Amino acid sequence: MGSINIKIVEVGPRDGLQNERLILSPQDRIKLVKKLSNAGLQQIEFGAFVSPKWVPQMYEAETMAHSLKRWKASPKNLKLSALVPNKQGMDLFLKNPLHQVSVFTSTSESFSFKNINCSVKESLTRMIPIFELAKKNKIKIRAYISTVFGCPFEGATSLSKAVKLIDKFLELGAHEVSIGDTIGVASPKQVKEFLILCEKKNIPLQKLAMHFHDTRGTALANVVESLNFGIRIFDTSIGGLGGCPYAPGALGNLATEDLVYLLKRMGYKTSVDLKALLKIHHWIQKKVGHPLISHVGASGPWILN
Amino acid sequence: MGSINIKIVEVGPRDGLQNERLILSPQDRIKLVKKLSNAGLQQIEFGAFVSPKWVPQMYEAETMAHSLKRWKASPKNLKLSALVPNKQGMDLFLKNPLHQVSVFTSTSESFSFKNINCSVKESLTRMIPIFELAKKNKIKIRAYISTVFGCPFEGATSLSKAVKLIDKFLELGAHEVSIGDTIGVASPKQVKEFLILCEKKNIPLQKLAMHFHDTRGTALANVVESLNFGIRIFDTSIGGLGGCPYAPGALGNLATEDLVYLLKRMGYKTSVDLKALLKIHHWIQKKVGHPLISHVGASGPWILN
Repeated sequence: MGSINIKIVEVGPRDGLQNERLILSPQDRIKLVKKLSNAGLQQIEFGAFVSPKWVPQMYEAETMAHSLKRWKASPKNLKLSALVPNKQGMDLFLKNPLHQVSVFTSTSESFSFKNINCSVKESLTRMIPIFELAKKNKIKIRAYISTVFGCPFEGATSLSKAVKLIDKFLELGAHEVSIGDTIGVASPKQVKEFLILCEKKNIPLQKLAMHFHDTRGTALANVVESLNFGIRIFDTSIGGLGGCPYAPGALGNLATEDLVYLLKRMGYKTSVDLKALLKIHHWIQKKVGHPLISHVGASGPWILN
Repeated sequence: MGSINIKIVEVGPRDGLQNERLILSPQDRIKLVKKLSNAGLQQIEFGAFVSPKWVPQMYEAETMAHSLKRWKASPKNLKLSALVPNKQGMDLFLKNPLHQVSVFTSTSESFSFKNINCSVKESLTRMIPIFELAKKNKIKIRAYISTVFGCPFEGATSLSKAVKLIDKFLELGAHEVSIGDTIGVASPKQVKEFLILCEKKNIPLQKLAMHFHDTRGTALANVVESLNFGIRIFDTSIGGLGGCPYAPGALGNLATEDLVYLLKRMGYKTSVDLKALLKIHHWIQKKVGHPLISHVGASGPWILN
């Protein structure tokens, strides 16, 4: 029996960098994307087509798309995506269309208002033209659902609301739905409850990506629970870039190198080279100007082969 | 159905502080022990009867024992233990005998030589008089086995050697055996393999404590796997005190507050008050003079009740 393949979706250049204080140039961000691709990552979110007034860290996503679209050494199986919050963003994306776009909403009304200044329902309405344009241009759509296991403003959130949103996204035509533990509060117990509920409601689990944050040290425990249910896609960020915007000094996104280490030790297969990842960790650490606090980044991997 | 009780063995004042650069006075260490007890911890390793030439951080364990022995407000169910490496240590312990002593060995010959300058076999021989004196004085013995899942010098280590050592310790009369992932390299896969082997060899799992390090972010995942096998005792260190002596800047012992958070979120019961733990985290952080890098210490617990 061959070992099971796990797909890692690298969100560092977008979800990570958008929470960093130092703003990196589009050129540095392009370098980061290429390095990650060369380390074996096959799905990378490179940026966001949002107003630089709101998210200055993501400025000139067009420049990135223009350059990445023309990257000659780009591996064939590399999928690049960008976040688009609205039709304007989608129009910009389509000037140099890459493989896919990402859209997002939340299970928490308060989070939705603080984040994108509209209700959850309104956020879905805003996506309709994005889905239409994507279909017309044969662009795949990845949908993010935030605060699935808890919200920094509302506390506990409804798991069944998350399941309804998954249904909605799949119906609209999303090919992958990313389930966000945005503030890192889930334990394997909640993950199990959620995935049992998904199974009951006939959600195709192979379309789900789990997006854990390691804020309270539970990310890898949650990954293992998800693996037990047959989940095969996980979102991570190189070096745990970005930290946690709700708790300065705390970890945010699960670090790519931490996940790759765990998967290696458990006998799962990924396309990623851990040694190369650790080099990128040290390179991007200098660029963002502070120590990145991933576990394997600090400790070294112990077993590399 | 009532929820399942988990016993947490706090090893911060010994295993944590012995790896800190700053040396704390016996008075500060006594304060730490009392604070931890007041936070609900019921088994605490307060120090080690070792030569201050070798481990200066543990100096004057006698002073601590003398004072703790006379602590009038001491809760009835509090068990205090100290590490004793040899008969001399045991003799010192018996001047102010507390509830139990700890002994230790390793599954790695190289680790044993570097740590206590003798072979694994010789370390067991040295323990015979300790076990004899303990029996005579009705003192319980906790045995530590280090490097069960890997050694910083030898790499992979033998799980069946660990099982043989457990057998030996139980035969000698240990009431609890602590299974150390000393350098934090285990994943749930290795934990599962180990516990299946223990079951096969008729090891009574209720006598095992799992002692995980979070060096590579896998500690809580390993805890969850152990819980699934019915393990009910875990060793932790407040604030993750001590870091990892083999990887500066990396996490060492699983932090008590991280375990308590996970257990709370999973519906397990402990005797420990998380709010009180976080206060101790901040107090001891000032004493050791550097930020402690536990997850929940940095992030806050989100849900306290």
